Amino acid sequence: MPTSVKIFDTTLRDGTQGEGISLSVEDKIKIARKLDELGVHYIEGGWPGSNSKDIEFFERVRDMKFTNAKITAFGSTRRKDSIAADDINLNRLVESGAQVATIFGKSWDFHVHTAIQTTLEENLAMIYDSVLYLKSCGLEVIYDAEHFFDGYKNNPEYALQTISKAQDAGADWIVLCDTNGGSLPSEVTTIVSAVKLHVSTPVGIHAHNDCELGVANSLAAVQAGAGQVQGTINGYGERCGNANLSSIIPNLQLKLGYHVISEEQLKSLTPVSRYISEIANMHMPINQPYVGNAAFAHKGGIHVSAILKDASTYEHTKPELVGNKQRVLVSELAGQSNVLVKAQELNLDFNKEHQKTKEVIEKIKDLEHQGYQFEGADATLELLLREAFEGLEEIFTLESFKMLVEKSANQSVVSEAIVKVKVHGETIYTAAEGNGPVNALDNALRKALIQYYPDIKNIHLSDYKVRVLDEKGATAGKVRVLMETTDFNTTWNTLGVSSNIIEASWYALVDSLRYALIGRQRVEPANKEQNERLGLINH
Amino acid sequence: MPTSVKIFDTTLRDGTQGEGISLSVEDKIKIARKLDELGVHYIEGGWPGSNSKDIEFFERVRDMKFTNAKITAFGSTRRKDSIAADDINLNRLVESGAQVATIFGKSWDFHVHTAIQTTLEENLAMIYDSVLYLKSCGLEVIYDAEHFFDGYKNNPEYALQTISKAQDAGADWIVLCDTNGGSLPSEVTTIVSAVKLHVSTPVGIHAHNDCELGVANSLAAVQAGAGQVQGTINGYGERCGNANLSSIIPNLQLKLGYHVISEEQLKSLTPVSRYISEIANMHMPINQPYVGNAAFAHKGGIHVSAILKDASTYEHTKPELVGNKQRVLVSELAGQSNVLVKAQELNLDFNKEHQKTKEVIEKIKDLEHQGYQFEGADATLELLLREAFEGLEEIFTLESFKMLVEKSANQSVVSEAIVKVKVHGETIYTAAEGNGPVNALDNALRKALIQYYPDIKNIHLSDYKVRVLDEKGATAGKVRVLMETTDFNTTWNTLGVSSNIIEASWYALVDSLRYALIGRQRVEPANKEQNERLGLINH
Repeated sequence: MPTSVKIFDTTLRDGTQGEGISLSVEDKIKIARKLDELGVHYIEGGWPGSNSKDIEFFERVRDMKFTNAKITAFGSTRRKDSIAADDINLNRLVESGAQVATIFGKSWDFHVHTAIQTTLEENLAMIYDSVLYLKSCGLEVIYDAEHFFDGYKNNPEYALQTISKAQDAGADWIVLCDTNGGSLPSEVTTIVSAVKLHVSTPVGIHAHNDCELGVANSLAAVQAGAGQVQGTINGYGERCGNANLSSIIPNLQLKLGYHVISEEQLKSLTPVSRYISEIANMHMPINQPYVGNAAFAHKGGIHVSAILKDASTYEHTKPELVGNKQRVLVSELAGQSNVLVKAQELNLDFNKEHQKTKEVIEKIKDLEHQGYQFEGADATLELLLREAFEGLEEIFTLESFKMLVEKSANQSVVSEAIVKVKVHGETIYTAAEGNGPVNALDNALRKALIQYYPDIKNIHLSDYKVRVLDEKGATAGKVRVLMETTDFNTTWNTLGVSSNIIEASWYALVDSLRYALIGRQRVEPANKEQNERLGLINH
Repeated sequence: MPTSVKIFDTTLRDGTQGEGISLSVEDKIKIARKLDELGVHYIEGGWPGSNSKDIEFFERVRDMKFTNAKITAFGSTRRKDSIAADDINLNRLVESGAQVATIFGKSWDFHVHTAIQTTLEENLAMIYDSVLYLKSCGLEVIYDAEHFFDGYKNNPEYALQTISKAQDAGADWIVLCDTNGGSLPSEVTTIVSAVKLHVSTPVGIHAHNDCELGVANSLAAVQAGAGQVQGTINGYGERCGNANLSSIIPNLQLKLGYHVISEEQLKSLTPVSRYISEIANMHMPINQPYVGNAAFAHKGGIHVSAILKDASTYEHTKPELVGNKQRVLVSELAGQSNVLVKAQELNLDFNKEHQKTKEVIEKIKDLEHQGYQFEGADATLELLLREAFEGLEEIFTLESFKMLVEKSANQSVVSEAIVKVKVHGETIYTAAEGNGPVNALDNALRKALIQYYPDIKNIHLSDYKVRVLDEKGATAGKVRVLMETTDFNTTWNTLGVSSNIIEASWYALVDSLRYALIGRQRVEPANKEQNERLGLINH
């Protein structure tokens, strides 16, 4: 039984089959770099036989240095009734310059008849010839036995024959694929054990998540002797996704004691998973195990009381081990413990018996009732708490804003904003254009403030999300705007709610600037001196 | 070993601990009705000891009739060093009027010392007294052994003693909870098997998803003899969620052969899961197993070719069994097969060799490159294909629109739109207000069109989503607007992409009306006569 497990990442190939995922060559290169840092052992870069984008990827990575990972190219066995050495797609693998070729072949007799429409014997020859040819070209060869579990359940003798052919031809790995994702852990245990008795070549597992068992099936295979796990970061992939490496890696290493990656690399799991979700432009589910924003978040009042005594009462592992962190959420169910924790973080004198404390809790409840959700907007909550306890100076007051969008037939759209604000007793009236209405408003407000707050030029909005709260009403419903702002060192999130998207954006925008200009002084005292220098304090 | 499994749904109690979930009493009642239709056996409605909303829920359901489900109220064992009959929270369970009480107690010695800070003996008495008191009040009692697996791993003798106490006091069920979600299927198998040898009371499982093993752990427990599974629809719940009943029910019934609910009820699984996500105002992950919109969606060209031959080549089960359906996605990776399937649905003469076909595929690729994603916008794709093949009459042409949002200090915000469009050769110039800018634009456009298309009054936008495509640029980035429109019989989705949110909304809005007024005639011939009557054809 192996004590270490090799990770084969296919985010760049099988992952891009996921609905809504589309990666440019540049995206793929960025992701490959991150995967290498994370310490995966194989990076499947694409299918050079299927599209020109993937051919370009292999050209670009050919001269790049990777510390931990080998690059592998994906393809299929040769076409039926042809010669491997003449097969254009097999030759694309060779030409790709990848060190490792991963090819899939058919294990399931039903598929041989139905999908590729050939004989069982020809399919065996296709596997043998293709592996042999790639080995003769000096490549490491991983043989992916497509639909192996379905094939084994239907015709175990034939399924075993197909992988014996790959072994006979010299394959370095035989990877058993649960392509349709319909197998159960108990079946995986039985079938992997049978395969281990039948072949001596190292065995791997490639699972899908159609029964929400992708992670469990991967673990079951490893416990039955598999030494390689194929999957994708965040479980991206067709239909319900591939087996999720962001959960499999910590499960193998922290729960089952296998050596997979280094402790330091494991600490990069959360940032790498989030980085890849950003590059893939996929929403990161907050409840994603290990790496999600809510994975170690506590909402229930009882749980919060207990974790204040000892975090292991309600945490199955230390979030720091995977680069994540504990969060305490504010909500109506949580009683006052959670707001208390947040107030403690801010060093506020938050005595539950004080009138001020009761008032701010009432205010939070009232805002939540209107659709505010502070769980995703720490900066807005912090401003609210500090304003209630300490008072915060106004950086400006609004007199009015106007926002205009104009479009004529066949002309490009124009957005303008006009703002009138009072700063340090002076009225400033200015206007700006933008790519869109919120951008125009952002530009106009910055233009009005920058002479008083020059620091503002280092601050940029980095994300903008809109949620319709009352879906029944659609464009007449309330919207919640969540903004993420960054100064390149830290990021903070602010929130606005209104039935008008422009007004909601305005609230979030104002809080993002308030937090940057006055809210952070207390939390990051290192900035205090700089802020004093810039005249941001006691103006 | 049981051949049927009882489902205990805690969406309304543990599910509401999930980040971002907040249900009103009305919401809870709607969800309870649906859960009863689905055929779950227990519905845990809330914790009457913790908040007044839950007390109100039990008051309201007291006189309602449920066909399949028993309503249960949740609480904890009595407080330490007190008398069960005097315990206010236990009495709230009795007063709730629920037939079934579910109470949790401590199994883990560490928690007894750390969280409730009492002796191991007193904890045993708390369990025994509480179950005994509730039984004496005539209730069915489900004993939830909190942290059972962690407790067993730490001190198996004590963990077993706690459940023996519940059994001695007459508990009807003993449910083993993996409260922190850190256990593995192999551990669950071992521990449930040990428990089955130790107690004769029926055993259940309550798993969490912190290791992405909630479903697998639930199945492992059933395979080791558990007869009840606790979980939530869509896996809602604290941190990474509870075990997901939307996956567990079909896995138990379709894969493992247990009797859980009827075949007809199983067919309501997808609509019920989606309904509950809507009531909970939670985004339904498209890749959710069994019930997600992408669960049976095919993107890869090879897969699509094969499923056209036989769906079981790439589907682990029939989507209809769980009330879902197969979808074929359009994307750059898919080759032409997928567009072909869509064209076949529309009865278009989509010969791959035709110039028209090549042109429309090029156009789709180009739009995808700009950020369009037709996967979620069938109506926009349909309009595009039909326009290319058949030509579609214009319902109007835009001359110009202006959109104005104005806000003064302490005044409510005002949104106005002015549109100038040409309909049937006539120029119409009109304006309207709205709750927000897109609503104002929608109102103005409808006002301009309604005299020509009176049918428009039956059409309403039912959802509106915004996604920033280039997150780096934030408010200067591109946005994709997805609109859902309904005429109360059907819904359709349209799409617009622009760097300007108002322009993107405009495109989606125009397509939603075009589809309603001209796009659907072919697909729903039943409407043709009505449309002719309304003068919508050959005007």
